[in-house]
Amino acid sequence: MSKTAAIIGGGVIGGGWAARFLLNGWNLRVFDPDPEAKRKIDDVLGNARHALPMLYDCALPAEGTLTFCDSIAEAVTGADWVQESVSERLELKHKVFAEIQEADSGVLIGSSTSGFMPSQLQEGAKDPGRIMVTHPFNPVYLMPLIEVVPSPATDAQAVEAASEMLTSLGLYPLKVRKEIDAHIADRFLEAVWREALWLVKDGIATTEEIDNAIRYGFGLRWGQMGLFETYRVAGGEAGMRHFMAQFGPALQWPWTKLMDVPEFTDELVDMIADQSDAQSGHLSIRDLERKRDGNLVAMIRALRQQGNAAGRLVNDHQNSLRQTPEAAAPLITQDRVVPADWTDMNGHMNEGRYGQIFSDAAEVVMAMVGADEEYVARGMSYFTVETTVKYLAETHAGERVAVETEVTEGAGKKLRCFHRMKRKSDGEVMATCDQLMLHVSLETRRTCEPPEDVAERVAKLAALAGEA
Amino acid sequence: MSKTAAIIGGGVIGGGWAARFLLNGWNLRVFDPDPEAKRKIDDVLGNARHALPMLYDCALPAEGTLTFCDSIAEAVTGADWVQESVSERLELKHKVFAEIQEADSGVLIGSSTSGFMPSQLQEGAKDPGRIMVTHPFNPVYLMPLIEVVPSPATDAQAVEAASEMLTSLGLYPLKVRKEIDAHIADRFLEAVWREALWLVKDGIATTEEIDNAIRYGFGLRWGQMGLFETYRVAGGEAGMRHFMAQFGPALQWPWTKLMDVPEFTDELVDMIADQSDAQSGHLSIRDLERKRDGNLVAMIRALRQQGNAAGRLVNDHQNSLRQTPEAAAPLITQDRVVPADWTDMNGHMNEGRYGQIFSDAAEVVMAMVGADEEYVARGMSYFTVETTVKYLAETHAGERVAVETEVTEGAGKKLRCFHRMKRKSDGEVMATCDQLMLHVSLETRRTCEPPEDVAERVAKLAALAGEA
Repeated sequence: MSKTAAIIGGGVIGGGWAARFLLNGWNLRVFDPDPEAKRKIDDVLGNARHALPMLYDCALPAEGTLTFCDSIAEAVTGADWVQESVSERLELKHKVFAEIQEADSGVLIGSSTSGFMPSQLQEGAKDPGRIMVTHPFNPVYLMPLIEVVPSPATDAQAVEAASEMLTSLGLYPLKVRKEIDAHIADRFLEAVWREALWLVKDGIATTEEIDNAIRYGFGLRWGQMGLFETYRVAGGEAGMRHFMAQFGPALQWPWTKLMDVPEFTDELVDMIADQSDAQSGHLSIRDLERKRDGNLVAMIRALRQQGNAAGRLVNDHQNSLRQTPEAAAPLITQDRVVPADWTDMNGHMNEGRYGQIFSDAAEVVMAMVGADEEYVARGMSYFTVETTVKYLAETHAGERVAVETEVTEGAGKKLRCFHRMKRKSDGEVMATCDQLMLHVSLETRRTCEPPEDVAERVAKLAALAGEA
Repeated sequence: MSKTAAIIGGGVIGGGWAARFLLNGWNLRVFDPDPEAKRKIDDVLGNARHALPMLYDCALPAEGTLTFCDSIAEAVTGADWVQESVSERLELKHKVFAEIQEADSGVLIGSSTSGFMPSQLQEGAKDPGRIMVTHPFNPVYLMPLIEVVPSPATDAQAVEAASEMLTSLGLYPLKVRKEIDAHIADRFLEAVWREALWLVKDGIATTEEIDNAIRYGFGLRWGQMGLFETYRVAGGEAGMRHFMAQFGPALQWPWTKLMDVPEFTDELVDMIADQSDAQSGHLSIRDLERKRDGNLVAMIRALRQQGNAAGRLVNDHQNSLRQTPEAAAPLITQDRVVPADWTDMNGHMNEGRYGQIFSDAAEVVMAMVGADEEYVARGMSYFTVETTVKYLAETHAGERVAVETEVTEGAGKKLRCFHRMKRKSDGEVMATCDQLMLHVSLETRRTCEPPEDVAERVAKLAALAGEA
């Protein structure tokens, strides 16, 4: 039977929680006195319904039901979980907890608070043992991290149950060992925020320059390895102790406004080096470097496809490098290495990527005949209607390959290509593709004759192939 | 003609610079008295030759030549650029700059220093105007950010020339407006490092827990939007001013050890809100949300393929959701939405992704007959030898699709499938794929008969299709 969550307080955070539960099959009861609450939650749900299912290669469970309630009691009674996301005012949170526990003394309560400690939340509560912090990150429907912070008064079993529930929603419950203002992640966010305010105020950098300093540099590293594993790799073969020895003295330098620093003792170095060994010691620095580089290549390539951030930079750089192939038979329509993110469970290039490299090759042909991005913007294009791929040899990540293309038919609406993908090192043909494209109007979505200049260029390429 | 760069100081950073230059077609002269320098640079070059070309869909320029020199003079004379990456000791850097300018008074010099200001570097130099900071981030061959920091004494033309050169290498030169200890990015890194040392020392979190708090949360956000644009979106429709009003008071709270905070004046709020408008004001909050979500989905999917970080979490969650299809005709081998990173310049699903969804469908069939990951580990698999795809209707990101599969031939070494991809909303067939697979030994890399249990299951699925 479906479980039920109660959401107290909508908005961006409450709405994000709602989406996580709903799209994982939970029923949902929402209480928020804001007359705009329904619209706000619907907005977040719209984003979430678009984005979250795209993360997966299978369907998510059928959505649960969503009910808006008129009182806290109606929302929470008999629920399996209550998530509180009201404003960051302690007296308001106390009032909400009292109403919840009045209505259902047994229900587990997680608070989305960014900064309050659970012992502060529990002050005056009827059953403090059932209250804990479960702090999410925006957008809650995509970010996996949830900081689970119990106080000494929180029931251990409640924390276990919460962690299990959060994991079942695709979240990552990070149990915080001791309560502290702002938990873990927000301590970093607040330090960075304060440092950033100084940089803007002092005219060192604008908001955009600061964002670029982050997203073109350490932001990418942190998205996949975090802080300590990144530095372990940076320390090179000598590892974490070496890194700390190198940057230890800098702790006293005015490199940040955070000048209240722990004493740099051997004990602290040992503690960190030992924890780092426990975390990453099963991998050599060389293995970690490869893992890091694979992640970075895959992430930057993903951003290339979106045309954003570091991906946009690589797209621009590639445009400065790319050359139109000579109009000779065969056309060299691709010359590249197989990237790390193109391999399957057998360790060789995924079937789909053959389709992609041949599709990329066809785009080069299209550009040569004048059917480029601008042409598409003008409302015409060639669409592929059929491809037959023969897989002749295995292809691995890192191999340099080229595609040779012949235009085997080029008259009227038809543009037919025969592609051969060859290994550059020895010229072995690794796959072939017979690809039939038809010229279409993007307005009517039907086939139509191409304009004369394009038709002429297509005919010339087809004639080239005939001569070869 | 190829240009020439001189690298003074090898190691992880100098080696990373070497790779950037060399793989972009520059000739290189290296000076480093360390007897291990050549091996260390070769290690970095090995990583870079593997990783950097994978970022691109076209070949990089032919590699330049690499020469190890016996003196600074030999390395720098006549070079187009000198990159200094020696240890962080100011007197050593002064000595190096003196030798460089003694040998070639005109050459431009960039320093990789993390913390020194250019005016400190220039002290006592023969030609201070040609010295600036060009601070990279590890791994230099993949991270685009370079902080370009001039002092008031640095020639403006030299800074322009440096920026142009760095851009041509695929790097992003971020010009820092005023020199400051640790420039921009390292101020954040140092603040976070100090905060992290406190958290470990005080037993709040281990190194691994801190890394997880970063990479499963704000690390992903920062890899694509940085700090301010992320917060602009978090502020919702009311934007940056609202966000600041909400979190302004927290500046006085003990949320970090960084307690030296700028005064939270209207002037500061205006400054930041205005800069944020100039940076992101051309996009609505809704547009920014979509951009952010597209980036996050694509990055997390990239990490899924690598099996690391947030991607590993989604893989685990997916395994808990996925169900083996019923052995009925037709088999439902895929049921999913088309993700944002699967579209091409015409706005519909890329040709290659049809290949992928049919390949994923075939993997489900393979798992059903017992040819799963464990089977591959035992040394056997089915390889696809030919596919014919017919493209019947356009498919867009966000559409839910299913693949129905019939095993049309299943005897001996042969496993043939016919897949139909249908739109879930109306059942329209969007594409079909006729796929021939052969059973192979991964040891001999030749076809062979499957074991009896697998052959039986294949035959059963083929019989199902016959009945339908």
